[in-house]
Amino acid sequence: MRNIGLIVSYDGTNYYGFQSQPSGNTIQDKIQDAIFVLSGERVRLTGSGRTDAGVHARGQVANFSSTSRIPIERWMLALNTRLPNDIVVQGMVEMPDHFHARRKAISKTYRYTINCNRNPDLFRRRYEFHHPTPLDFDAMRKALNHLLGEHDFSSFTAPQSTKPSHVRTILDVRLDIEAKCNTAHLFPDSQAVLDRDQLWYPGKQRGVIHLYITGSGFLYNMVRIIAGTLIQVGEGKIASSDMTSILASQNRAKAGPTAVPQGLTLWQVDYDDEYGKIISSGHSQ
Amino acid sequence: MRNIGLIVSYDGTNYYGFQSQPSGNTIQDKIQDAIFVLSGERVRLTGSGRTDAGVHARGQVANFSSTSRIPIERWMLALNTRLPNDIVVQGMVEMPDHFHARRKAISKTYRYTINCNRNPDLFRRRYEFHHPTPLDFDAMRKALNHLLGEHDFSSFTAPQSTKPSHVRTILDVRLDIEAKCNTAHLFPDSQAVLDRDQLWYPGKQRGVIHLYITGSGFLYNMVRIIAGTLIQVGEGKIASSDMTSILASQNRAKAGPTAVPQGLTLWQVDYDDEYGKIISSGHSQ
Repeated sequence: MRNIGLIVSYDGTNYYGFQSQPSGNTIQDKIQDAIFVLSGERVRLTGSGRTDAGVHARGQVANFSSTSRIPIERWMLALNTRLPNDIVVQGMVEMPDHFHARRKAISKTYRYTINCNRNPDLFRRRYEFHHPTPLDFDAMRKALNHLLGEHDFSSFTAPQSTKPSHVRTILDVRLDIEAKCNTAHLFPDSQAVLDRDQLWYPGKQRGVIHLYITGSGFLYNMVRIIAGTLIQVGEGKIASSDMTSILASQNRAKAGPTAVPQGLTLWQVDYDDEYGKIISSGHSQ
Repeated sequence: MRNIGLIVSYDGTNYYGFQSQPSGNTIQDKIQDAIFVLSGERVRLTGSGRTDAGVHARGQVANFSSTSRIPIERWMLALNTRLPNDIVVQGMVEMPDHFHARRKAISKTYRYTINCNRNPDLFRRRYEFHHPTPLDFDAMRKALNHLLGEHDFSSFTAPQSTKPSHVRTILDVRLDIEAKCNTAHLFPDSQAVLDRDQLWYPGKQRGVIHLYITGSGFLYNMVRIIAGTLIQVGEGKIASSDMTSILASQNRAKAGPTAVPQGLTLWQVDYDDEYGKIISSGHSQ
């Protein structure tokens, strides 16, 4: 029995999330179906974790057991020709028997993208949240830093969560302001527009920002509620320093709204060096 | 009567091109319909030129006459709320009476994007041509430079063209290798993959390239045939220096195939300073 690992990217717009559902319209179902067409095997894919409906992935990791003799270097291209074009396998690799994509994951990084230019970016509208007025990026960055470390995240998960513990550890956070390397940002703003922004939105900025959050584990909707809360910080409705009391309250009602799924991307999943080195050797194989 | 100019971006994937057709599924029809809903006027929009089915635009320019009294600063947001989300008006501005988006255009710039990484870029698959093997970028750049200046482009237009003259002037060309600022390129290639590329495709490179071509005017399919020919140069099927004899032959059969429309974007339209300054003042108004 072989244990095959894969790294997969997907545009989640048209799917009910990663994890298999009776409807079949999930990333897991599509990959399992493609494996069946290719090898005749009905495998069960294990992902590093679920992603919700409409959420994307750059580097989701999964594994499955196979008795197929197809050489590992043939798998990726063969699967990609059988998958819909919004799911792309980026690499496949033989893993040790004891590798398990979910249980062996050490941490995950999510990215949430917010565009606060006046107009949405036409060519990335499916992958960002468009907020048409400027935000205070510095205040958002300070608020984000308050989340570092071990906390009870009850304020940042859906109230129906049934997890026994809401304590999670945030290992790294980052708010990146995107360099203007994308098409829609090449339009020069007229001075009149810049002047008006200064007048109407003092201390706030336009641009595209990416929130990166790395943690040992995440609760249901946690990153989207963090993003929704940071947007309220950026709007000036919540102070950066309020993050501490929001965490302490353990009360979902104190945090901001759940931000829309399309801004969220599962960016990468990290493993111990033992597995990580093997996985990165399989990239773009 | 007011003469209103607008700059518009669109994702052409789902349309039969810019110019109005009886089916109504064109960019021009959608904008005219939105203007009707907004102002009650049945206007006729004049674009700087057509774009084909599936071709995109970053900075298409158009104008129309209106008797509406809606202040110019209200138009853009009002239109955008009434347009499908794959068409975005980037700016609107009052133009002098004698401005005409097509007749007054001095030059146009098109961009053609080719991704020759192993896998397509999932998040930009609708805006690029995926060529899964490496290309010789230097040879392509040399070939592109041969097109500069005034030439008869009969070899680079569809044979059914009925234009009285196929002489056009190319003012500027550029082949840009994209900085790796986009998601799908962040995957490190393993050394084994790099070694194999060197062995199998000597002198060729992977990456995403953008061909920018600025001209006084373009024939039907001209940029797509240039792109298709440059791809054959990059593959080593045509020498860079052959561009001169392909032009001289005035024979469509000597050039390469017509590259797929989704890689093509109408990048910008340039006007005399008199108009150009007014247009850029309207950007992101």
